Amino acid sequence: MKSKFRHIALIGKHQPPVAGGMQPSSRQVLDKLANFLHAEGCEVVFEQETHANAGMQGYAALDVAQIGRDCDLAVVVGGDGTMLGYGRKLAPYGVPLIGINQGRLGFITDIPLNQIEEVLRPMLRGKYEVDDRSLMLGKVWRDGHCVFEALAMNDVVVNRGSTAGMVELRVEVDGHFVARQRADGLIIATPTGSTAYALSAGGPLLHPSLPGWVMVPIAPHTLSNRPLVLADPGEIVIELVAGDASANFDMQSLASLLVRDRIAVRRSEHHARFLHPVGWSYFDTLREKLHWNEGVA
Amino acid sequence: MKSKFRHIALIGKHQPPVAGGMQPSSRQVLDKLANFLHAEGCEVVFEQETHANAGMQGYAALDVAQIGRDCDLAVVVGGDGTMLGYGRKLAPYGVPLIGINQGRLGFITDIPLNQIEEVLRPMLRGKYEVDDRSLMLGKVWRDGHCVFEALAMNDVVVNRGSTAGMVELRVEVDGHFVARQRADGLIIATPTGSTAYALSAGGPLLHPSLPGWVMVPIAPHTLSNRPLVLADPGEIVIELVAGDASANFDMQSLASLLVRDRIAVRRSEHHARFLHPVGWSYFDTLREKLHWNEGVA
Amino acid sequence: MKSKFRHIALIGKHQPPVAGGMQPSSRQVLDKLANFLHAEGCEVVFEQETHANAGMQGYAALDVAQIGRDCDLAVVVGGDGTMLGYGRKLAPYGVPLIGINQGRLGFITDIPLNQIEEVLRPMLRGKYEVDDRSLMLGKVWRDGHCVFEALAMNDVVVNRGSTAGMVELRVEVDGHFVARQRADGLIIATPTGSTAYALSAGGPLLHPSLPGWVMVPIAPHTLSNRPLVLADPGEIVIELVAGDASANFDMQSLASLLVRDRIAVRRSEHHARFLHPVGWSYFDTLREKLHWNEGVA
Amino acid sequence: MKSKFRHIALIGKHQPPVAGGMQPSSRQVLDKLANFLHAEGCEVVFEQETHANAGMQGYAALDVAQIGRDCDLAVVVGGDGTMLGYGRKLAPYGVPLIGINQGRLGFITDIPLNQIEEVLRPMLRGKYEVDDRSLMLGKVWRDGHCVFEALAMNDVVVNRGSTAGMVELRVEVDGHFVARQRADGLIIATPTGSTAYALSAGGPLLHPSLPGWVMVPIAPHTLSNRPLVLADPGEIVIELVAGDASANFDMQSLASLLVRDRIAVRRSEHHARFLHPVGWSYFDTLREKLHWNEGVA
Repeated sequence: MKSKFRHIALIGKHQPPVAGGMQPSSRQVLDKLANFLHAEGCEVVFEQETHANAGMQGYAALDVAQIGRDCDLAVVVGGDGTMLGYGRKLAPYGVPLIGINQGRLGFITDIPLNQIEEVLRPMLRGKYEVDDRSLMLGKVWRDGHCVFEALAMNDVVVNRGSTAGMVELRVEVDGHFVARQRADGLIIATPTGSTAYALSAGGPLLHPSLPGWVMVPIAPHTLSNRPLVLADPGEIVIELVAGDASANFDMQSLASLLVRDRIAVRRSEHHARFLHPVGWSYFDTLREKLHWNEGVA
Repeated sequence: MKSKFRHIALIGKHQPPVAGGMQPSSRQVLDKLANFLHAEGCEVVFEQETHANAGMQGYAALDVAQIGRDCDLAVVVGGDGTMLGYGRKLAPYGVPLIGINQGRLGFITDIPLNQIEEVLRPMLRGKYEVDDRSLMLGKVWRDGHCVFEALAMNDVVVNRGSTAGMVELRVEVDGHFVARQRADGLIIATPTGSTAYALSAGGPLLHPSLPGWVMVPIAPHTLSNRPLVLADPGEIVIELVAGDASANFDMQSLASLLVRDRIAVRRSEHHARFLHPVGWSYFDTLREKLHWNEGVA
Repeated sequence: MKSKFRHIALIGKHQPPVAGGMQPSSRQVLDKLANFLHAEGCEVVFEQETHANAGMQGYAALDVAQIGRDCDLAVVVGGDGTMLGYGRKLAPYGVPLIGINQGRLGFITDIPLNQIEEVLRPMLRGKYEVDDRSLMLGKVWRDGHCVFEALAMNDVVVNRGSTAGMVELRVEVDGHFVARQRADGLIIATPTGSTAYALSAGGPLLHPSLPGWVMVPIAPHTLSNRPLVLADPGEIVIELVAGDASANFDMQSLASLLVRDRIAVRRSEHHARFLHPVGWSYFDTLREKLHWNEGVA
Repeated sequence: MKSKFRHIALIGKHQPPVAGGMQPSSRQVLDKLANFLHAEGCEVVFEQETHANAGMQGYAALDVAQIGRDCDLAVVVGGDGTMLGYGRKLAPYGVPLIGINQGRLGFITDIPLNQIEEVLRPMLRGKYEVDDRSLMLGKVWRDGHCVFEALAMNDVVVNRGSTAGMVELRVEVDGHFVARQRADGLIIATPTGSTAYALSAGGPLLHPSLPGWVMVPIAPHTLSNRPLVLADPGEIVIELVAGDASANFDMQSLASLLVRDRIAVRRSEHHARFLHPVGWSYFDTLREKLHWNEGVA
């Protein structure tokens, strides 16, 4: 029996530029992984930056668009951050991803380094669980023009600038006025993002299968302000009424805002697809990551 | 043009038994309302306890099953509690409800006493907004037998008894183990219930259109325990592992629990349908009820 | 050089009555400890229940009052619960306590079993840190009479009964009206108790040196209700306005309440004195117990 | 009988610079107030900016140092912000303040405009309640040198800059390591500041008589991080371990931080003294400002 996936892209975490590129350990992992996949009858290519960093010989180097066009699976070695980044980039091409965690267990990178072969083999043969994650499409509107646009898998955050003082925001959902908020900021998070910044700010956990998003105020002035979970087909618009603020998309793309700018967030038509070993459970990961087995006493 | 609804049931809040029955004011409201509906070409009946309390003459008195079979609308005069109670009872019959609030604005009883006629007239003619609310079907299983069963519109709560000390619960969702919890209790709330007890216990707000429920621990021992929002088609099972506890359904039906009892909650096939005036917005009500316009300073 | 403490009482955790009394391991620990203290020149007695459970020969068995009169130190083998219980009982006699934790590190039982001798030796010679903890004196007043009275080291809790529904409480501090509260209950906690039930209910941590208490509402109806930290010389009075409730003192002594009962809490004139090894830090224990070194990611 | 206070300084809120200076209403209030105090036998001077803005004739204009030296009372017309600012500036001189609120009731400006005379008259004659508030002295240390120093009545806040991402802080209290924190920031608040930013970030309320401060993390990465209330004689040191951050003192004085900067906060030797009418209660104000009388239902 052969691998269901013929063309596989390997992606490694991009380290900050150190002399000599990637850590030896990462290079060895990628090397071993490539050999294993080759032996399983797959054709292996490398994402181009991974290729450059790892100094791989004898493999093609492709950019994300080429991977999207040519590959039917991407295997990512890294942490949740790397996985989410490529999940977002590959979502428009429908390429599924498998995540191998280099350090600690991640929410979506759940295959430990020392079990790669025994866990990957059945997955390549089609035994896996599909875990689709929604994406947000965020736009910044200024004077009727879209001046910024980005996809986000975790969250869209409107945050106050470095000068002291709250921002004042006006929120609408599907054209209905929701509230004015004076706060340090406002987070709109997907289920994927509900375990990230939104959780620190006091938001609830959203199961990945929930077709909804949560809006979490950061240090709100009004004490009765609470996280609000919305069904996601709608459009959320946040207008900057007063203050110095910026909009962050997955904490990566940053747009400086002017008063009266409107940040509009709606569901992207694309989603990211992650594959997990059979028997994978979101709740097992949650329990492990949040230390639910360890009480105070 | 005539009323779209031909047979209308009138329901009033059941006061605690005082000499002389219902307060004069309630009786007058019902009387005036009946006359108005009659003038609009509707046939008016009274829910039987309302009929008895109000001492109505010249109107038929029907029980809930008869209302369910014969009427195409129920108009409730009271508060959210009364409305939710009859919403739950009439859900299996598909009869929609309109709520007239006797005191303060309610989350779902949103027509003020002094505007009954001008607000109801267009609604009777078909101009209204539909607000469907999901219901939970909760069952208590003991040694393989269902020993208790109830519908809930707000919440199913497993709560510790009066003796000091936490309970220990084991939670499963769709057969997947979620967590063991030591806490004062656990709330599973619908979007409707997310503004009730769950909110007091620290839960988020769920928009009524969200097909999901929230599970909120009450005073959990493990500090990283957080409200968890789940897509609602699944089944949540709570097992009492240790402690003295009871299960509450909408704070009305109470089942005493034994260790190893399992409380299973899933979506009811029925839903309650509330009608609101055109232009009604959930967010307007939320803002008003939670005093979002009034900050600290 | 000799022990600063001449007469030392040994106290072991009281196990639930099993055939044969205390677990062999506990007996061995106490035996070894007694021999060690004897070799250090101390006179050793046993708390009477510990004596009975452990089946000790050749040692006097004293009750708490006798220990209070005759001993200048008590060494407790057990967990925080045991330590707090004897701390409360010995407080009126001014006998300090040292805690040896049998299982996991406790907040106040901080000497591990396998380091008893090397840690205790310098402590006996006077090298230790003093950790004094305030106690609450709680009374229940009914129709002008005190019908119940108890000391508490952790907390005084007014909690709703097992029937569904909130209680309504009226709070006064030093004769000033503070608030009416509709909630599941209300906790008044010392710094010692701030890491117990109050923490689960959302309260802050209070450093043991803080001369104050915290009042934490449990699932309060009013969302702007927040934990309130008070300077402790004052008197807090909680009146039961409505509902079915009880008062708990350290989760051990329970008083059923009637509507209009007043629970008055003030600082006890006594305090418990715990001794720790030199270099002990409250913050080290806090960090360890609350898992502050382990984030989500 | 005469006023206990002979030399009184009048201070008005400084409006943002509009053509023509202070609003007519403020000028009239100050004018009326000055006449009233004069009639009571007091000598009235004006704070110099108030004097300039209000265009006062026939009164001396003094700066804060002169007021500190020459006056035995300051009457402030404005909001809590103005009152806290002058409370901080006059604290080193020991001059007490009375606050007249121009708009809504403040936490410390509690005399309404329309009751000035009847409320002030007995206060001038010595019938008042004293409300002393502690101040923090905050310093920023860099490479062993103090590069910034400021007093704060509300809070000292270390906050992340405008770029995305948390800061990492290391906290010590009196030389004891408390914790490393990854968060948006950290607030150290006095009881006065516990109703301001710290409250929005989830902190408890501290009664003004409490000799303690609260440390509140903003959106902490570790979920078991909780507000920590400390006895205030100690010194809190926050070191910036990583990230882009600034230190804010009462949201007014801002110091940009470098990695390894240490912000040291201890109690100032001075305190601010506010005077209130007899019968004033902190709890009454709290209840009013936090809308504790208005539940959800």
